[in-house]
Amino acid sequence: MLRRWSIEGALVPLSLSCIAYPFWRNNLVLPTLYASLGYGLLALICSLKLIPILSPIFKARGLRGRDRLKLNQHELPESMGVICASIYVALMILFIPFVFTDVLFSRQAPAQSTLSAVGQAEFPQQQLSVFLAALLSLLSATLLGFLDDVFDIRWRYKLPIPLIASIPLLLVYYAERGNTHIVVPKQLRVLFGRTILNLGPLYYVYMALLSTFCTNSINILAGINGIEASQSLVIACSVALNDLLYLPLPFTFKLQGFSFGGIYGAGMAWGSRDLVERHLLSLYFMLPLIGVCAGFLRFNWYPATAFPGDTLCYFCGMAFAVVGILGHFSKTLLLFFLPQIFNFLLSCPQLFGLVPCPRHRMPRYDLRDPPFLFPSLTVFKGSPSALATRILETLSVLGFARVTRDVSTRNITSTTNLTLLNIILIRTGPITEAELTKMCVLLQITGSLIAYIVRYGLAGLLYDGDRH
Amino acid sequence: MLRRWSIEGALVPLSLSCIAYPFWRNNLVLPTLYASLGYGLLALICSLKLIPILSPIFKARGLRGRDRLKLNQHELPESMGVICASIYVALMILFIPFVFTDVLFSRQAPAQSTLSAVGQAEFPQQQLSVFLAALLSLLSATLLGFLDDVFDIRWRYKLPIPLIASIPLLLVYYAERGNTHIVVPKQLRVLFGRTILNLGPLYYVYMALLSTFCTNSINILAGINGIEASQSLVIACSVALNDLLYLPLPFTFKLQGFSFGGIYGAGMAWGSRDLVERHLLSLYFMLPLIGVCAGFLRFNWYPATAFPGDTLCYFCGMAFAVVGILGHFSKTLLLFFLPQIFNFLLSCPQLFGLVPCPRHRMPRYDLRDPPFLFPSLTVFKGSPSALATRILETLSVLGFARVTRDVSTRNITSTTNLTLLNIILIRTGPITEAELTKMCVLLQITGSLIAYIVRYGLAGLLYDGDRH
Repeated sequence: MLRRWSIEGALVPLSLSCIAYPFWRNNLVLPTLYASLGYGLLALICSLKLIPILSPIFKARGLRGRDRLKLNQHELPESMGVICASIYVALMILFIPFVFTDVLFSRQAPAQSTLSAVGQAEFPQQQLSVFLAALLSLLSATLLGFLDDVFDIRWRYKLPIPLIASIPLLLVYYAERGNTHIVVPKQLRVLFGRTILNLGPLYYVYMALLSTFCTNSINILAGINGIEASQSLVIACSVALNDLLYLPLPFTFKLQGFSFGGIYGAGMAWGSRDLVERHLLSLYFMLPLIGVCAGFLRFNWYPATAFPGDTLCYFCGMAFAVVGILGHFSKTLLLFFLPQIFNFLLSCPQLFGLVPCPRHRMPRYDLRDPPFLFPSLTVFKGSPSALATRILETLSVLGFARVTRDVSTRNITSTTNLTLLNIILIRTGPITEAELTKMCVLLQITGSLIAYIVRYGLAGLLYDGDRH
Repeated sequence: MLRRWSIEGALVPLSLSCIAYPFWRNNLVLPTLYASLGYGLLALICSLKLIPILSPIFKARGLRGRDRLKLNQHELPESMGVICASIYVALMILFIPFVFTDVLFSRQAPAQSTLSAVGQAEFPQQQLSVFLAALLSLLSATLLGFLDDVFDIRWRYKLPIPLIASIPLLLVYYAERGNTHIVVPKQLRVLFGRTILNLGPLYYVYMALLSTFCTNSINILAGINGIEASQSLVIACSVALNDLLYLPLPFTFKLQGFSFGGIYGAGMAWGSRDLVERHLLSLYFMLPLIGVCAGFLRFNWYPATAFPGDTLCYFCGMAFAVVGILGHFSKTLLLFFLPQIFNFLLSCPQLFGLVPCPRHRMPRYDLRDPPFLFPSLTVFKGSPSALATRILETLSVLGFARVTRDVSTRNITSTTNLTLLNIILIRTGPITEAELTKMCVLLQITGSLIAYIVRYGLAGLLYDGDRH
């Protein structure tokens, strides 16, 4: 306890000096980034301090759940993600004025005329509406997540809500004349007869679905301590690292024709102001997210003392959708979701009712201390359909499922639940919960590395020219 | 039950045709207003349908409270305001595109260049950011209210949150170069030596406090069935009526030099486009608010089957602050809060600890059926301070409190709680809860009438020229 308090104590002056630094040192290349870094640290401090204080209150108010993978199924506070989300949104609202400091301080006193409309164009309204739309979408996702935690909304009711929450994002995307074109890969150009394809309204449908996917895919890959928060943390760090590649940093890094940093070149942005601004925006949203996720992980890591609830998954997922859409890098973003995409595709037979789907698909555990985890099973009540049998056989050959068959009829009677966690357990054999979480984090980091290779290495095979 | 369903059944096609009307009939003066009216009806329908469906779920999840002024203290679902707020915010997000229909439909296809920044100024970014900021503030207030209902946050923690929630509003106000001047009343001009006084940053402090006042003042005047929702409904209708005075209506109404309506004159706006747009904005926010409040009142009116919780008060209060600030009529708005201001000032001795403040200050009831209500009492533990005695004696002379004194020392031993409800009960004698609610509604309506007289009749005594 003493150690954690002293860490926080050291962080407070650090974060405040980060926020104040641009005010007493002029001529910084990216002054607002210092403030953002400071806010990221503040987010970390606030979550480290508030979560233990509020935990007993959450439990007292009925927001609690048993940790099902422990021998002594202690009750832990649930839905603590709402604390993270509240800290995040409150800090982001307080951060907005910093983005506009140069406008706020350099502007003349308002004209004497009461109804003066002169000079309205001066204020970067577009940038402001981008921030407001992003926070509105985030807050909607948070409220949805919390209502879901409290009321256990059925999924067919809650499915359209991320769609409604994404409308502000889409409007802002439209208002800034966002791109709706995709570049056709070299190999497919003969088919389409063109290099660039305008998807028009379909592109907006794609973005709306992206926000639904991001909010739900993190929620599906869940069930063991620390997994939701660590997924979000790795993705947030990957996005932030990707953003850094486009910023005018005070140094230059070069590797085989691939370079980033450099004040004037602005790294991969090659001097495009638009690209620099979009990735700055993305960093502003990612740094505090890294802060709250890291702070929360302190309590959610094995053995957990706090549960995230759906709130954290919805809120983090929406934050990723926000930066992907408003930063105009939704395809790159999806590359960072490789484990989630794989887990989603794998889950489809259960989600769409081909294979029975129990309420919880988390691994089983034995009575050792700490318990070892085994793949959990789902049992067919009747005989499976021909399609389900074909799918399960294919998955079984690939090593993604383990099926049992009736001795006489050779029909499939049960299968391991179709989740990424179970695949890891099939491959590794029984391991402890802590080991499984670490494996997942490793997998997520590997996914991000692959994403970088695909984005900056292999993209040249599909597309010509600089695809920045 | 049958009757309510048939009302809703009739309202659905009406609301949908209102929304669709501007699409098949061109040349309407205010096309978006029809859509807004349609959304207001939709808000009514949704709240009428969803509240009874969700009531048992709220009760099952522990969001329930006893009706303390009934003989059989039934448990009713609490915090139902979160349903109203969710319906409202979801509908308002869906409404935003209608405000921009003319831009959305008349615009050319986006330019072929992917990084084209040309034509960004075309989209009314400022109007969009106004909407987004308003919804962001509303949603923050809703989340705060709901968290307060679930966790019973202490008031010193929840006090600053409406301030944070109002930052987006203030930024947007600043971005559109909002007025920070006040016109000095004729009588005080000698004192200040000028006609117009620029309050500068103080004006922003005033607006931030306004949002805190609006969210809390409705919450303080509470305790009997239907009072929170009916206050909000009357204020919302008053604001909407005031907005109508400034719109270009297809008719003209004249009364002793005071005229409104008329397509070209645009009523009280006298052709000012700014004024028309601000009051249109206010109407867009008020019509769905009237819808949800009216729908909720169907269940919250005596004898109530649903409680609003703090969520409704916070959400409605913030909606009023939003239109007052962004519609630039915060002073007129405050006139519609006369009963709330009076109740707040009256409550100050209890809020600031001069007079003991019990947790509930609602009236007492007797054992008749239906019970009659009496003013509730607060008892001094020691002898009251000189200041408290002086205040209570003054209030007692004015008929705003009834005190009891020790026979020997003549010290005040107890007083009626200092609320508007108790004053009504002191004046009228014991009445039933239903009668008390009706009296309050009548008082609120009277307050609005006085507000209109002050705003459009007496303002000429303090200010010269047209103060529109």
